[in-house]
Formats: sequence, C-alpha cells, structure tokens
Amino acid sequence: MKMNNKYEEITIKTEPIFQGKVISLQVDHVRLPNGETATREVVKHPGAVAVLAIKDDKMIVVEQYRKALGRSQVEIPAGKLEQGEDLMEAAKRELEEETGYRCDEVRPVSSFYTSPGFADEILHLFVADRLSAGEANPDEDEFLDCEVISLETAKRYIAEGRISDAKTIAAVYAWQLHRLTGSYTL
Amino acid sequence: MKMNNKYEEITIKTEPIFQGKVISLQVDHVRLPNGETATREVVKHPGAVAVLAIKDDKMIVVEQYRKALGRSQVEIPAGKLEQGEDLMEAAKRELEEETGYRCDEVRPVSSFYTSPGFADEILHLFVADRLSAGEANPDEDEFLDCEVISLETAKRYIAEGRISDAKTIAAVYAWQLHRLTGSYTL
Repeated sequence: MKMNNKYEEITIKTEPIFQGKVISLQVDHVRLPNGETATREVVKHPGAVAVLAIKDDKMIVVEQYRKALGRSQVEIPAGKLEQGEDLMEAAKRELEEETGYRCDEVRPVSSFYTSPGFADEILHLFVADRLSAGEANPDEDEFLDCEVISLETAKRYIAEGRISDAKTIAAVYAWQLHRLTGSYTL
Repeated sequence: MKMNNKYEEITIKTEPIFQGKVISLQVDHVRLPNGETATREVVKHPGAVAVLAIKDDKMIVVEQYRKALGRSQVEIPAGKLEQGEDLMEAAKRELEEETGYRCDEVRPVSSFYTSPGFADEILHLFVADRLSAGEANPDEDEFLDCEVISLETAKRYIAEGRISDAKTIAAVYAWQLHRLTGSYTL
C-alpha cells in the first residue's frame, strides 16, 4: 500500500488520559510539518465487525438503546472484536449472539475507519445470505429486539431517522448496489 | 420520529473525564432495563460536515495525515461544525478552505452517526456539483494535498486502502448509485 506520509506528525509525547472497558483516550503532542507543535486527541478502540444478513430478500436488524445518542436505533448486528479474534468468526458470533441467526459463511463487503479525525476504530462489514434461525444470546448488559425488514422498509427507516449509523447506511447502500449490479462491493 | 425506547438506560451519575479541543469524554453510570447498573463511555463531538464535490465527473479529495491512524488517508473534504453554524454553510466553508473550490449550492445526501456505540458524532454528507476553482486556505495546523479523481480511481484507492473512512466510502457508494439511478440518496 503506497502512502504519501509527507505531512507526518511526529509524536513528541503521549499523555494517557483514560482506560475504559470499550475505549481508551490519549492526547498526543506532535510536531507538525512546519515545525510547530499541536495536540491530537486520540480514542483507541479494538475494532468492530458488522453483518449485512439477508434472509428471503430481507435484512436482519436489531433495535437497541444507544446511550451516546440518548435514544434507540435500528442497526445491523455488530460488536467489537475480542482480542486475537478472527474477523469472520467475530462476525458470525455477533450475528448469532444478537439475533440467533447462524451462518456458515460471511463474505467481506468493506472495512472503514468510522472517525479518522479522532479515533482508530475500524469497522469490518460482511455479508451473510445463507442463514439458519436459532436463539439469540446477547451480552448480559445488552438489550435488543430483532426485526427482519425489506429494502423499502430500510429506506423508510433511514428517512425517519430510525436507521442513522454509518455501518447500517453503508450496508443499505451495498444492498441497493447488489440489487442493481449483482455485487455488494464498489 | 417514532422511537421504541423500552430499553432506555437511565443515567444515575455522569462522571466527566476529559474536555479537549475536538472531543470530550464522560462515563455515564446507568440503570439497565433489568435493574442492574452498568457504565457507558461516551465521547461528545460537535458533529461534522463532508462534501461529495463533483467536477467534470470527477471527485475532489484531499490527502492528509491522520494521527489516530498513524498514516495518510485520501478523504472527501470535511470538518467539524463550529458552534451555531448552518450545516450547508459549514459544508461550503470546509470545501473552500480545504480545496479552494467554491459552490453556491450543496444538497443533502445522508446524515449518520459514525460510532453510536461510544460517540455522539454525527456526519452530514452533502453533494456539490457546480463548482468554481479558487485558492485553498486550510487551518493553521492542517496540511493537505488536493486531488481530483475518477470513480474508477476512487474504487482503486478503496481496494488499496488509501480511501478507508466511512464518510468517503458512503460518498463513493452514493456517487456509484447516482451513476446507476440518477439519485445520490437511498
């Protein structure tokens, strides 16, 4: 991967601020390309997986309360990576834990940094389209409802603001693209 | 907007952790639907705007170093909102500051929360397709190069990992959708 790092910011000092369950926060003091100094607030996150799970031409979503937003949201099944976990295994695990649906295979759609301005979180989006139903088994502090929706309903949820997160909107774009071209990927 | 908040998490106490230039961090102690308590790490962000700017069927992008990722990335022009700023004015301002391109009009494509699991950041994506060239004027701690790329180059940059952030990937999906259907929105 060829990278132009001519504007690299050299770390002078890293100030650890917080170590939490999900994220940690540090402030990096950096030297800028012009020789001046600046600070960069950096949130560290273990990364996450999400699944566009399609059954009978409908998408499996979960509705859950998001404390950061102060309201419920409809999202595709997702969760953070556990240490050393294989991405595809993590995607299958999250799908099954949150919805009860199982799949033997997931395929990569896209991986993206959610907020490169302040966080290193990367989200790996997969598609699964051969599913069998089972029983959900969410984490002990996780409360959610599962729903199976058509593309038209997904678009309506986006218009209504019930779906409004980057990974689910990317998944719906990918699904729409698949309808038009047969491919989920760009 | 109808919302199912039956799994609402009631805040018992908010612990302020950090107040920075870009983000702040707090830990919310909450009561869960089952009566148990838990903590939620919440990053507060002022929100951001981004522009899919199209000129002669090419997209205007900027390459800049991202400290959180430790490398350079190619992204669409974007920036955080200033207090009380109109979204469309902010989008036009960021486009002009980062690239020198000016536009009289931007149209909304999509708004999404980048990381609803731990942050309230919302990103408002606009499209601008009638542009005039001018001079870039980035912030004093911002160093970037502007480039104008075709859809095919954008897809190659995604494959190579040079484009790998949520807003730019959403923008490229929207651009691809526009090619196929005449509409940027889902």
